[in-house]
Amino acid sequence: MSTNPEFYHHPQPFPLERGDTLRDLTIAYHTYGRLNERRDNVVWVCHALTANSDVADWWPHTVEAGRFLDPERYFVVCANILGSHYGTTGPLSVNPDTGEPYYADFPALTIRDMARAHSLLADALGIGGIHALVGSSVGGFQALEWICAEPARFGRLILIATDAKASPWTIAIDETQRMAIKADPTYGEPRPDAARDGLAAARAIGLLTYRGPEGYNASQQDHPEAHFTEPHRACTYQQYQGEKLCRRYNAYSYLTILDAFDTHDVGRGRGGMRRALAAISCPTVVVGITTDIIFTPAEMRRLTADIPGAVYREIESAFGHDGFLVEHDRLNNILLPFMTL
Amino acid sequence: MSTNPEFYHHPQPFPLERGDTLRDLTIAYHTYGRLNERRDNVVWVCHALTANSDVADWWPHTVEAGRFLDPERYFVVCANILGSHYGTTGPLSVNPDTGEPYYADFPALTIRDMARAHSLLADALGIGGIHALVGSSVGGFQALEWICAEPARFGRLILIATDAKASPWTIAIDETQRMAIKADPTYGEPRPDAARDGLAAARAIGLLTYRGPEGYNASQQDHPEAHFTEPHRACTYQQYQGEKLCRRYNAYSYLTILDAFDTHDVGRGRGGMRRALAAISCPTVVVGITTDIIFTPAEMRRLTADIPGAVYREIESAFGHDGFLVEHDRLNNILLPFMTL
Repeated sequence: MSTNPEFYHHPQPFPLERGDTLRDLTIAYHTYGRLNERRDNVVWVCHALTANSDVADWWPHTVEAGRFLDPERYFVVCANILGSHYGTTGPLSVNPDTGEPYYADFPALTIRDMARAHSLLADALGIGGIHALVGSSVGGFQALEWICAEPARFGRLILIATDAKASPWTIAIDETQRMAIKADPTYGEPRPDAARDGLAAARAIGLLTYRGPEGYNASQQDHPEAHFTEPHRACTYQQYQGEKLCRRYNAYSYLTILDAFDTHDVGRGRGGMRRALAAISCPTVVVGITTDIIFTPAEMRRLTADIPGAVYREIESAFGHDGFLVEHDRLNNILLPFMTL
Repeated sequence: MSTNPEFYHHPQPFPLERGDTLRDLTIAYHTYGRLNERRDNVVWVCHALTANSDVADWWPHTVEAGRFLDPERYFVVCANILGSHYGTTGPLSVNPDTGEPYYADFPALTIRDMARAHSLLADALGIGGIHALVGSSVGGFQALEWICAEPARFGRLILIATDAKASPWTIAIDETQRMAIKADPTYGEPRPDAARDGLAAARAIGLLTYRGPEGYNASQQDHPEAHFTEPHRACTYQQYQGEKLCRRYNAYSYLTILDAFDTHDVGRGRGGMRRALAAISCPTVVVGITTDIIFTPAEMRRLTADIPGAVYREIESAFGHDGFLVEHDRLNNILLPFMTL
């Protein structure tokens, strides 16, 4: 059951890394628990692609007493990312220059823009230091970008199934999704449900990579007695998941965020990725998933090696990249002790 | 440099497993070398998704003196599969009932139909026993289907990066490609270039799975000095490969073959997959590729275990499923001694 976010309206224009400026910036966010008097119990969660700021809704059994995002202990904050569908300024927001929604005209973003918006919100909420910064998947992109921009702000860093730079592999996945969306000729039309069939196909592509071979083979086997001409469960699943996303999201936000992902490189303007990561000085844990084909264990070990003192932990799971959502018990077993190190 | 195929026109109607009948059946095929007097030097190659019967063209350095398809030693045959774009009866063929090409009305096929067409051609060419049957990827589907139908016909079996039954994972990949093609509203139009954008996106999806993380990261890194707003190499590659397929293939054949793949199950009507595989009695080698995310090494080991006496060999490669095309030297090192066992 999701709850409504709160909103922060930024009083100034927000310049973007690629040159445009958002005249109006609104950030939707959720908080859980209370900021303590010493203001030292903040945990900031960065969300992934199509999620929203309601962590308690999309990440099962994390924002609960006794878990690593315990709201009785921590002041947990999550902001909806720039360009998203869920309340923060994005393609469905009204362009103050035209009085109409941006749609395909929304300016190009970077992960750095997203992290800078998080920083503005933290300042506006009176938050200085942040006890722990948590990012999974593209949330990890933001977390790494933010900690490289403001290294002294964070007490510890949790990176789950993510990377410091978009790889050719992840960029190819994104480009393929763009091709699917743009094969739908309603892409470009000024309405929130433009490119619906293309978006469904793009989501199905994403799902292939989120679940991978083990994920599908573990969960989508046909009934042994099914006739060979009946629809396969794996087909129904792809169709259903594509359709489900179209009911809750829009193609313009999806493309805006994919485009931003591909520019991700914490080393930009910082002397390269390795140098940027070498400046991270807080305790860091990197969590990989055995069957993740997006951010493979090998890639996660390389990331760990580039962050001074970081430790690598691996979750055994058949659910691929989605393991970070599914294996909340295993994840909690790793992260709970790390939070109080 | 590709060469033109020969054609076999089957003199009778060809009934299909799903109930339709092809009134006209033409099979395009290539042969290399000569059938010897004892007629015991036939090697039959089954091709994959969008390939054709010209093995020497699509499988580098295999149909060459001293290699496992040595045309001085063997009579190598490859038939273009039913439903394909390359000469065998398919969606662009004229439907004798209407005098127009079938396009979207081409009947649904199965892998069993494809294997039965191979068998008809072999008979027509005066071929009885076949020294070796070779199939990679979906070619392996046909090879397994054929050997289960006519076990006494074959002297040895070579299976490369393939499986005995479509898995939920491979079906999900196919369904996602169908979604991309059908998101293009020109799908269904009676012309060979219908659904061109959708087909390009589908091909890009396929490529993700053919190459996988290691393949892209090994070959599509951006230039270190590239500005972050420049097009990424991985994007250009996906676009180029999608476009390239559209110039040589059609969406109707692509869908027809994908649909056939999903019905693949050598156990159908044979008491289940394990029982069907247990009846294979000739020497068999199964070759997997370390980084193949379609037919993973784990899956290939399971296949090997189900075939009596089969041996498993693995090729170390960064090229994923496409490793079977790229690593022709390593493959030859495995297969050359197997051919003369």
